[in-house]
Amino acid sequence: MSKDGSISASVIKRLPRYYRFLGELQKEGLERISSRELSERMKLTASQIRQDLNCFGGFGQQGYGYHVDELRMEIGKILGVDKHFKTILIGAGNLGKAIATHINFETRGCNLIGIFDINPKLTGEVVGNIPIRHTNDIESFCEANSPVVAVLCIPKANTQAIADQLVNLGLKAFWNFSHYDLSIDYENIVVENVHLGDSLLTLTYATNIITSTDTDNSEEIE
Amino acid sequence: MSKDGSISASVIKRLPRYYRFLGELQKEGLERISSRELSERMKLTASQIRQDLNCFGGFGQQGYGYHVDELRMEIGKILGVDKHFKTILIGAGNLGKAIATHINFETRGCNLIGIFDINPKLTGEVVGNIPIRHTNDIESFCEANSPVVAVLCIPKANTQAIADQLVNLGLKAFWNFSHYDLSIDYENIVVENVHLGDSLLTLTYATNIITSTDTDNSEEIE
Repeated sequence: MSKDGSISASVIKRLPRYYRFLGELQKEGLERISSRELSERMKLTASQIRQDLNCFGGFGQQGYGYHVDELRMEIGKILGVDKHFKTILIGAGNLGKAIATHINFETRGCNLIGIFDINPKLTGEVVGNIPIRHTNDIESFCEANSPVVAVLCIPKANTQAIADQLVNLGLKAFWNFSHYDLSIDYENIVVENVHLGDSLLTLTYATNIITSTDTDNSEEIE
Repeated sequence: MSKDGSISASVIKRLPRYYRFLGELQKEGLERISSRELSERMKLTASQIRQDLNCFGGFGQQGYGYHVDELRMEIGKILGVDKHFKTILIGAGNLGKAIATHINFETRGCNLIGIFDINPKLTGEVVGNIPIRHTNDIESFCEANSPVVAVLCIPKANTQAIADQLVNLGLKAFWNFSHYDLSIDYENIVVENVHLGDSLLTLTYATNIITSTDTDNSEEIE
């Protein structure tokens, strides 16, 4: 059972996915699962799973498998799903609104408490029970509420300036959807960049490869 | 200059990011850039960049650097940005609408030509110049238009059934935003899963680590 950060980065990277799959098993009412069954669902090898989950102590028992609830709870604790990090979202355009309403922040350790946009026409509009505030109010809001996490759904040109402002206001973590590569130019600040455009380009590349192959083989296929 | 798929997977993975950065340089009006300058912008080592870009032939010249336009064009060709893959989007909820309006498909090799939703109340509503059609019309639409790429913004429970239907209708590539891990159970089908919830959990974990560290050191910081 490791609580001192000694879990390897590659295991950490897979934890959200384990957590998600274990949640599905819970919903199905499963109490336990073998590493073999879990490996089939997750398309990982059973030995990979055993190796990963060994980091978290004695949840896998010979002949019993993993106790779904306990294992999920332990992984959740490591991820920090019980943390209630106060979270604000900047940029209430289509994407910002979709993120605010589509993502369940609460079950992922974050409480969305404020939404901001520079467009005064949006001020007061309610998105997922939260009224949109003008970006001019970010400073007073942060001083009063001390949010930790910021979701950035703003145009590229504004990202660095807003991030600088938010760091000065005490924010520690950025979930960045802007096209700007927010880099960790600050100490003790964490950034998770989500580049949806890059993701689509990766798919386009793979599609290009697979459809070119299809054409090459077209005469062999019925 | 490699056109036979001999570029390594790790280089491929970085190509969308190179393409994006080179696009920014173009917008700034830069004609050429040294590997050192590019490395500073991209937070990669200059030798990493030289090694990556050597795959694409003689664009880097000693004492000159990289020709921005040519290099970007070459990378774009490899990625397939000129392919115009016909693309449909299924699920016009908040997220689907945001993806349809926020993402520039055209510059990434995909032409969004159809949007579908199971909710008849949405039928006819226009999103980014495209009228929403009912999911009942997917089959006839695909037979008439032969789309290649599908963007899935639908609930988990429906994902596998819709994906099966679309594969039977000839679609080859899936950009999957549902919470369901669409796996490649099919031959010659490519999938890019986007798990925004996992991304947020990764940030939560990092935030948890960094804020715990902050607390430990709180007495040392002014």
